[in-house]
Amino acid sequence: MSRILAIDAGGTSTRAVVVDTSGRVHGYATAGSGNPVSAGAELALESWVAAATDALGGHETPVAGALVVMAGASAGVPTARLAERLAPLGLSGEVRVESDLLGAYCSGTIRPDGCALVAGTGAVAARIAGGRLHTVADGTGWLLGDEGSGYWVGHRVATAVVAALDGRGPETALTGAVLHHVGLAPSPERVDGRPAVLLELMRALYAARPVELARFAPLALELEDDAVAASIVAGAVDALTGTLTAVRGPHPAGPVVLGGGLLTGSRQGGAAVSIEPTRLGHKVIEALGEAHVIPVGSGVVGAAVLGLRSLGQEVDDRIFASLRDGVAQRLAT
Amino acid sequence: MSRILAIDAGGTSTRAVVVDTSGRVHGYATAGSGNPVSAGAELALESWVAAATDALGGHETPVAGALVVMAGASAGVPTARLAERLAPLGLSGEVRVESDLLGAYCSGTIRPDGCALVAGTGAVAARIAGGRLHTVADGTGWLLGDEGSGYWVGHRVATAVVAALDGRGPETALTGAVLHHVGLAPSPERVDGRPAVLLELMRALYAARPVELARFAPLALELEDDAVAASIVAGAVDALTGTLTAVRGPHPAGPVVLGGGLLTGSRQGGAAVSIEPTRLGHKVIEALGEAHVIPVGSGVVGAAVLGLRSLGQEVDDRIFASLRDGVAQRLAT
Repeated sequence: MSRILAIDAGGTSTRAVVVDTSGRVHGYATAGSGNPVSAGAELALESWVAAATDALGGHETPVAGALVVMAGASAGVPTARLAERLAPLGLSGEVRVESDLLGAYCSGTIRPDGCALVAGTGAVAARIAGGRLHTVADGTGWLLGDEGSGYWVGHRVATAVVAALDGRGPETALTGAVLHHVGLAPSPERVDGRPAVLLELMRALYAARPVELARFAPLALELEDDAVAASIVAGAVDALTGTLTAVRGPHPAGPVVLGGGLLTGSRQGGAAVSIEPTRLGHKVIEALGEAHVIPVGSGVVGAAVLGLRSLGQEVDDRIFASLRDGVAQRLAT
Repeated sequence: MSRILAIDAGGTSTRAVVVDTSGRVHGYATAGSGNPVSAGAELALESWVAAATDALGGHETPVAGALVVMAGASAGVPTARLAERLAPLGLSGEVRVESDLLGAYCSGTIRPDGCALVAGTGAVAARIAGGRLHTVADGTGWLLGDEGSGYWVGHRVATAVVAALDGRGPETALTGAVLHHVGLAPSPERVDGRPAVLLELMRALYAARPVELARFAPLALELEDDAVAASIVAGAVDALTGTLTAVRGPHPAGPVVLGGGLLTGSRQGGAAVSIEPTRLGHKVIEALGEAHVIPVGSGVVGAAVLGLRSLGQEVDDRIFASLRDGVAQRLAT
């Protein structure tokens, strides 16, 4: 029975799984950042090789091909070098790359038509038609979009605190939380007509990469009794459902697969197959009304589905259940 | 009669003027970027020296001191080195530094109490009390604030165009204008579920520094028949008046001095003393209702006012008029 290596190459971590055409899971492993765009091609390749080697059990196993799901799938990725590095372990056949959005979708369902909404540091939605990526909305990055994402929420937290500190915005419990988070203490001292602590906060925030503002997102989700925090969270729910609506169109059909650390609880443990929505995830589900929503923890099952399909193996309910259960079992042990 | 050298050290250009205690203007000159924070201390110092040398006429003239107005006045600035470099040309006495906000305010009025609102790439407001900076709001930079600024408007233009291109936002005439501005042509081609031109636009915008999004601000001001553009401009007026309100308080007193390239037409010619408000400036003035608004073109007259005061010279209406007229005359010739 042919086997395939499937890799979910994420910005934070990489997940690899070895499955056969019956859906049986033979190996599973994780490694560090696997996205060539954010981590660089060399580091990403090493993560792919590390996770794949562990998943293959470190010894020669005939594998008929490999499939990698990742963001920016159309960018130049080191697939030929992965094939070369894993050949001694038994990999033959092609290494293919697919969109992480398709990977996320196929982790939740084998239905050919539906949508995926993935929100972590960034946010993106896709409509899948006939098992292929049809339309994508947002995922345009911290500067230009990613509306409702962890960055978007964290950025709004930071600007609300800055506005509160210099009297432009309403007071908010976020101020104390953010100052504590960056190791500053409130103080009445003023410098050049401004609170001294505001100048210190600005220095701290400008010293970090903008995208690191995403670290403040959990503060808004924790402080929901605060009007400013609640309004930021409500704005994120609106933005995320708006992005989904842009790809779903006026006559939505099929399930909505929900993924990413902001919407499903996959952040702590790295990969997870089917996982509880976060509090924000629950709000999004509520806002979606009657839609059939399927939360997923990562795209690794979807990578396996796409890998089996690339071998010509149709993935039915039985095979899909085996893949999901097999990965879930590996995670639990 | 004692003379003083006054320098308005801006991020785009530096203006220097030599005046005496009667308010007579003896020399005026401009040079390149003079802000040590944005341009670096070395480049800023060279701009200061170049403008000052030209204003002093290039030959020895006894000057009793110098006063520089600049953003981030409390940061370490090379005042001692300026004194050293200009000593051969006759500069004795101290080189003092004051806030560019105080410089802008004192370019418009000699009244001890009032406010200033300055918006160019950034945006900031200040209340002046007893001739000194009392309270400052915003000026917190592109990432954390500068609400209503050129960056803020340009950023909203860019995100509106990106949202329109991927179907999340309403269509807008800004799309064609922005694509034209960056040298891209609209096209129906799609890549990975998105318009190809959106991916090209994203590449172009992420390749530049975020603050360069300010270059799109004029597009919103030009396309006011467009609902999206009009809403961005209205948002900027609200944000700027909100920032001013934060420092003016519930019982505003004194005039409001308006400065910066977004609000007054000082962009093309470098320095100007009293200058027409821009279209956005007029909208802000309208929103301010009955306030006495004084547009200024730069902070160089204010630097001269502060310089004379630092010599113990009280600046009355006659001296102030002489300073303003003297600088205006230099600009006109």
